[in-house]
Amino acid sequence: MIKVILFLLLVVLIPANYANAQACCSIDRAIDAKIKAAVDSKVSATLAKSQLTCTTIKTSGALAACLHGYTVTGCSCGKACGSWDVRDNSTCHCQCANVDWTAARCCKIVR
Amino acid sequence: MIKVILFLLLVVLIPANYANAQACCSIDRAIDAKIKAAVDSKVSATLAKSQLTCTTIKTSGALAACLHGYTVTGCSCGKACGSWDVRDNSTCHCQCANVDWTAARCCKIVR
Amino acid sequence: MIKVILFLLLVVLIPANYANAQACCSIDRAIDAKIKAAVDSKVSATLAKSQLTCTTIKTSGALAACLHGYTVTGCSCGKACGSWDVRDNSTCHCQCANVDWTAARCCKIVR
Repeated sequence: MIKVILFLLLVVLIPANYANAQACCSIDRAIDAKIKAAVDSKVSATLAKSQLTCTTIKTSGALAACLHGYTVTGCSCGKACGSWDVRDNSTCHCQCANVDWTAARCCKIVR
Repeated sequence: MIKVILFLLLVVLIPANYANAQACCSIDRAIDAKIKAAVDSKVSATLAKSQLTCTTIKTSGALAACLHGYTVTGCSCGKACGSWDVRDNSTCHCQCANVDWTAARCCKIVR
Repeated sequence: MIKVILFLLLVVLIPANYANAQACCSIDRAIDAKIKAAVDSKVSATLAKSQLTCTTIKTSGALAACLHGYTVTGCSCGKACGSWDVRDNSTCHCQCANVDWTAARCCKIVR
């Protein structure tokens, strides 16, 4: 009877382990492919939604500040004035005397 | 004979299930690691390619419009004029009388 | 005895294959869910760090160049001049006669 048991174990277990060894590698490759496809598609889709968004903040006087999270990309000034500087990356300052208004062009990346 | 069958089943099936239970967790961890590596690499590679790109659109008159997909970050005007505003985020309007040309600085994110 | 062997093989192998067939699909779904979660989290974390950063380069004369990797989004000129153009996407040129200084607003995406 012990011979029968051993024989059965051999018959049942050896092919099973062999099959597992093969399955390991094709499953491995399938998982790799799945991961690559899912990651590529998801990353592209998510990044495709990110874009530059800008808005203008206009105030009377020589200073105009962007909202939190925005940075100044350019400034416009009343009295035809083209001389300006940016303070703390977030505020436009028009330099000409008697400037009546200042506008900040404010941008950020949105997703 | 029934005892032999039961014994064999126990001998064959219990270790198999125990092995599966262990395999589940190490496979799980392996898949997690695989996914993390794939995502990290793809996200980094994709973002490394994304950058700010800008172009200038210059026209005669007081209006200059960006191409579709671009947003205005600043405007330049003829006659030394520094007073401008942005319409619909995509068009520069120079405000001084008799402005002979307008240029829009137009930017977007490319990947 | 041959009947016992056959019976045992049937009892042991058929449920095992059935279990594998089921495992395939639930593993499949589990991997898909894992990938989705990993990508969402990594993309969000990475994109959350990416933002628009700008700096100003100011020089005497009619030309101001951005540092490598930055692109011009707007220019400011001395003498209240609002007429400028951008050269090679990286240099501001103020067009008015006798401009004493030029400032380039230079931006890029950082991660």
